[in-house]
Amino acid sequence: MALIVHKYGGTSMGSTERIRNVAKRVAKWARAGHQMVVVPSAMSGETNRLLGLAKELAPGKHTAAYRRELDMLASTGEQASSALLAIALQAEGMTSVSYSGWQVPIKTNNAYTKARIDSIDDKRVRADLDAGKVVVITGFQGVDEDNNITTLGRGGSDTSAVAIAAALKADEALIYTDVDGVYTTDPRVVPEARRLHTLSFEEMLEMASLGSKVLQIRSVEFAGKYKVPMRVLSSFTPWDIDLAEEAKSGTLITFEEDEQMEHAVVSGIAFNRDEAKVSVLGVPDRPGIAYQILGTVADANIEVDVIIQNVSKDGITDFSFTVNHADYARTIDLLKEKVLPELGATEVEGDPRICKVSIVGIGMRSHVGVAAKMFRVLSEEGINIQMISTSEIKTSVVIDEKYMELAVRALHRAFDLEQAPS
Amino acid sequence: MALIVHKYGGTSMGSTERIRNVAKRVAKWARAGHQMVVVPSAMSGETNRLLGLAKELAPGKHTAAYRRELDMLASTGEQASSALLAIALQAEGMTSVSYSGWQVPIKTNNAYTKARIDSIDDKRVRADLDAGKVVVITGFQGVDEDNNITTLGRGGSDTSAVAIAAALKADEALIYTDVDGVYTTDPRVVPEARRLHTLSFEEMLEMASLGSKVLQIRSVEFAGKYKVPMRVLSSFTPWDIDLAEEAKSGTLITFEEDEQMEHAVVSGIAFNRDEAKVSVLGVPDRPGIAYQILGTVADANIEVDVIIQNVSKDGITDFSFTVNHADYARTIDLLKEKVLPELGATEVEGDPRICKVSIVGIGMRSHVGVAAKMFRVLSEEGINIQMISTSEIKTSVVIDEKYMELAVRALHRAFDLEQAPS
Repeated sequence: MALIVHKYGGTSMGSTERIRNVAKRVAKWARAGHQMVVVPSAMSGETNRLLGLAKELAPGKHTAAYRRELDMLASTGEQASSALLAIALQAEGMTSVSYSGWQVPIKTNNAYTKARIDSIDDKRVRADLDAGKVVVITGFQGVDEDNNITTLGRGGSDTSAVAIAAALKADEALIYTDVDGVYTTDPRVVPEARRLHTLSFEEMLEMASLGSKVLQIRSVEFAGKYKVPMRVLSSFTPWDIDLAEEAKSGTLITFEEDEQMEHAVVSGIAFNRDEAKVSVLGVPDRPGIAYQILGTVADANIEVDVIIQNVSKDGITDFSFTVNHADYARTIDLLKEKVLPELGATEVEGDPRICKVSIVGIGMRSHVGVAAKMFRVLSEEGINIQMISTSEIKTSVVIDEKYMELAVRALHRAFDLEQAPS
Repeated sequence: MALIVHKYGGTSMGSTERIRNVAKRVAKWARAGHQMVVVPSAMSGETNRLLGLAKELAPGKHTAAYRRELDMLASTGEQASSALLAIALQAEGMTSVSYSGWQVPIKTNNAYTKARIDSIDDKRVRADLDAGKVVVITGFQGVDEDNNITTLGRGGSDTSAVAIAAALKADEALIYTDVDGVYTTDPRVVPEARRLHTLSFEEMLEMASLGSKVLQIRSVEFAGKYKVPMRVLSSFTPWDIDLAEEAKSGTLITFEEDEQMEHAVVSGIAFNRDEAKVSVLGVPDRPGIAYQILGTVADANIEVDVIIQNVSKDGITDFSFTVNHADYARTIDLLKEKVLPELGATEVEGDPRICKVSIVGIGMRSHVGVAAKMFRVLSEEGINIQMISTSEIKTSVVIDEKYMELAVRALHRAFDLEQAPS
């Protein structure tokens, strides 16, 4: 008997028929002897509908008092879907109860609309599990120390599920989604992309942060921190498929590197079209310029990703970084108005038509020449590299957006990702 | 400066435009210097939509565990509308915060779907009011001692508003509805029906229990118990009408009999088509027969209204009572199967085509001959009275359904209700 957490996304909860299917699947796991906790998202479309009503009433409001009410509002979506799932489980003959975040309670800070979980009390849930109940817990939300409802931001239900699994020391958190696992890269770009059976937590973290949208990155951080085994699998398989088969489907995010791991040097290729490049040219190379440029940008709440400072020539250097497309115009203006005159730099230029392509693999730690191979492959395809950024287990390059598909396909082939490692 | 509670029904909250109008109206009251608490219902249609989803998933479920989930589900309607109203108030320049029942907290027993309020903590709300905030509190719901969400049953938001007004010792609870007050009778039946400016709490209680659907009867009981002045008024007046005019519109339910009261003998005429008559004939007249008959009915959870036992003749009597239409067939079956054989009565008969017409007036206490006048008027119209039931301030008769309009119009005229009392 294991303690298992299931998480279902909005699409899986999108109608009473789908909710009934979720209940049948969960009941199958419970009847096999497992203690079950289920974390559903709101029915698809519901969160957008509610937030749309708020926007109609207060376009452009952004105070903390407003965000508090947004959380009161949006949290009702998961409360409703959780109650409906408990009802569907009861109709399947289970004893089941649903809880909102505050009833568990799941304690968070008070950063409304993007709160962070501080602690989860497992007493009430554990007592229910020991009494044989299937416990449904709202995803996406918690409660601050003054009993205000908070939400964890978009995709927060993944984080809820993993945090609950951590608090209960669950054996596995199964994240049911509309894809059947994590792929070596996006199959829409590379049809030969292969589903990974296992992936290390660190690789998943890089994949998520580099643009793979399968999991919310904070859920992966949580899984890493508390060592919760986490599996991404499809909610579109028939609910009555063999449990043993279902239990090993999808992709397992794991912490035991040497056991089941597939020993590929590179596990996957991520890409991101959402960034733009900004450069400050002719910067006098003296201590503190990085802070002068990036401090100004950070003060305007603009997030910076890849950062490059060129080697200085005659005491003059160039400084480049990438920002999100949405912040591009604002960043250029800011640099021209504030940074350029203060710094005595010659020019600000930018390019919104870039993309970032990354190879990710825990094997890169112990294999030399992986980055070099990446650069060679791109050069053979005639692709110019504009920026490079590396970490222990990933290498990212910024290239012209029009070469993105070409680069991803060439790298996928060069690192033999269409083949399962032997 | 007064402390005022406003309650808005689902129709008033039916769209973002209507919510904006509610916010403008409340802001007008707040700007006039009043401390404001607002209790909204769910947006119209929302509660039915949610309960409809539950019914699709579990037709025929009626366990306590199921009803607990229904309350989790249905309570989201008011939480969402409350948050939206707080947002609309913020957009009007107010500082505003919304609370669910559990956040106040409004403590109830655990009779899910029809809970009763035990206590309301006023600390948090009072602190907000003193800080100049407009406080929005979800109608219809509370929390039991184990932190489960409960609801108060249909129309429960009226009760919430009055209970909150009682806890805060508010100066008045204004119940905004889609009618502009309490009438001498239903204007759809008697076009000359007149709006009452004031009505005693006891009269309102009789009117509500006798079929006037303007207020939930439990809200009137609460108002009576805690002496909360309560006003029923229209939410369809323009939000910007003069506050002084608005403050004396509608109908005031009052506790000060001798002051503002309109000294009519009869204040209003109520009627109810929802009942059916059941008779047990040829009952041996011995002690305990009423209990034997009604005890069996009560055990089946069937509510009985008017009860008549005829004078005994030769040790044999007839026993009649009315039940709700929905329980009619079940009651007949029950009497035939269980009561008839045990009792040795001769026959069970029933008539679903009856109605109850009642005259209500606090003046009846001190005026003799009011009931006699009622019987005379009905007799002059050729209407046969089947059953009679009286209390200190009302007289009800059960008559053939087809005479209902005729009876109500004749009584309205005979008691001069189209004229304001001098």
